[in-house]
Amino acid sequence: MTVKGIEGFIIDLDGTVYKGKQPIPGAVEAIAELKRRGMKTVFLSNRGNISRKMCKAKLSAMGLDVPEEEILLSSTVTANFLSAYYSSSPVWTLGDAGLREELAAAGLAMADKPESAEWLVITLHETLTYKELNDAFRAVRSGARIIATNADKTFPGDEGDSIDVAGMIGAIVSSTGKEVELVIGKPSSIMAEAALRAIGLPPASCLVVGDSLASDIQLGKKAGMRTALVLTGSAKREDAEASEWQPDWIWDSLADAARAAAFSAETEAAK
Amino acid sequence: MTVKGIEGFIIDLDGTVYKGKQPIPGAVEAIAELKRRGMKTVFLSNRGNISRKMCKAKLSAMGLDVPEEEILLSSTVTANFLSAYYSSSPVWTLGDAGLREELAAAGLAMADKPESAEWLVITLHETLTYKELNDAFRAVRSGARIIATNADKTFPGDEGDSIDVAGMIGAIVSSTGKEVELVIGKPSSIMAEAALRAIGLPPASCLVVGDSLASDIQLGKKAGMRTALVLTGSAKREDAEASEWQPDWIWDSLADAARAAAFSAETEAAK
Repeated sequence: MTVKGIEGFIIDLDGTVYKGKQPIPGAVEAIAELKRRGMKTVFLSNRGNISRKMCKAKLSAMGLDVPEEEILLSSTVTANFLSAYYSSSPVWTLGDAGLREELAAAGLAMADKPESAEWLVITLHETLTYKELNDAFRAVRSGARIIATNADKTFPGDEGDSIDVAGMIGAIVSSTGKEVELVIGKPSSIMAEAALRAIGLPPASCLVVGDSLASDIQLGKKAGMRTALVLTGSAKREDAEASEWQPDWIWDSLADAARAAAFSAETEAAK
Repeated sequence: MTVKGIEGFIIDLDGTVYKGKQPIPGAVEAIAELKRRGMKTVFLSNRGNISRKMCKAKLSAMGLDVPEEEILLSSTVTANFLSAYYSSSPVWTLGDAGLREELAAAGLAMADKPESAEWLVITLHETLTYKELNDAFRAVRSGARIIATNADKTFPGDEGDSIDVAGMIGAIVSSTGKEVELVIGKPSSIMAEAALRAIGLPPASCLVVGDSLASDIQLGKKAGMRTALVLTGSAKREDAEASEWQPDWIWDSLADAARAAAFSAETEAAK
């Protein structure tokens, strides 16, 4: 178990650092230890319904002080994508307020009504009502194209596995017959590139740590990074064995990341 | 334009008798005229989120007094189906209160929690919240089978076309990977048989009137009934020409039904 040559950790949040409002045991200490050892860190999450500001506050409440620049959410990356390619397009959202916070931060304007939107941005909507679902439906019926922050089916909520963005997408796609044009979240290369830009290291010097084989491990392997699966979230050891996405390491939890970094450093020093 | 041999009218509601809360001009008078001429009537609607009691009150507010026995909603027929074949199965619902009223009227028991449900019944949910969506998701993840009152994509609401049951179904199917086992609503033979039982006439003596080619006209033709499309709802004349479901008549509105019945009666009398 060595992480030789690794200078940066790209770390997933839900199921890796915390579950709902609870930090995963050892995670906060492990991140502090990685930072103490000079490792660069970026937090890369498929959560699209919160903003970096909200995420920073959540991490801070767990005793983890992380600058906003180290946080990349699918809401952030979606906002940056739209800002780069469709900066003058009015948007409509089906999702919580955090998404709109990120869109506004990227300089995008909300449409004044659903019918005027050129893009509908879909993310997790934990405060969903029928009216909001219907407004999104009306936007797409009037010609808005569909982009989704991610397409996860479930996320580990405070009361167990909960319905995620795939549900919101399914509602709109099934009722309008229109397809989603782009899904920004992991494992997309858009997310990988955003993370690499933020961490400022070449892929070979980075390690992706996360609890999802399809999201985290696939993203890391496709981008030429090393990968570690943690067993604190959705995947079990046998899932990894059966997966087409084989992580370089399987760790019980993020705490093993710090142990691996320490072991690696000692091995280096002993040479 | 003759409706010779017709003794009963099976009449759709949304888009045929009313749109949102507004009666369609001439519809109320036409129904009164049909009844005056001794025609039997049954109102057959894919609406699954209201009960017969609620529907009766709505029609009454428009000046149309209809006994509950003449009203057949997809909520009613779904409740009767479950009561006939799965009377001891606890159910969970994703839909408005009217559905639960019909399920209770048919003697079905609600599960005490989503995880205990054997069936999830999905219908239009105009008071939907994320929590209710998530409860339905949890029911299916725990093994509940899915039945839907109908699978319409849109309905004509007070503010224009609105997202219908297909949206609610899409949310659950896309996030759970489970399919809907049974859709009760028109054009199913279950709805046709329920209507024929309620009207007490053979198919050849019945005329189905509705605004949907795929629901009303298809149901009527498959069951051996005559059919009339009204242009007051979702379908236009050119839709009918392009459809595989060719109605026997195309009427501007339900008012033509009374004219056709009158014309037919005069023709008969003149013989």
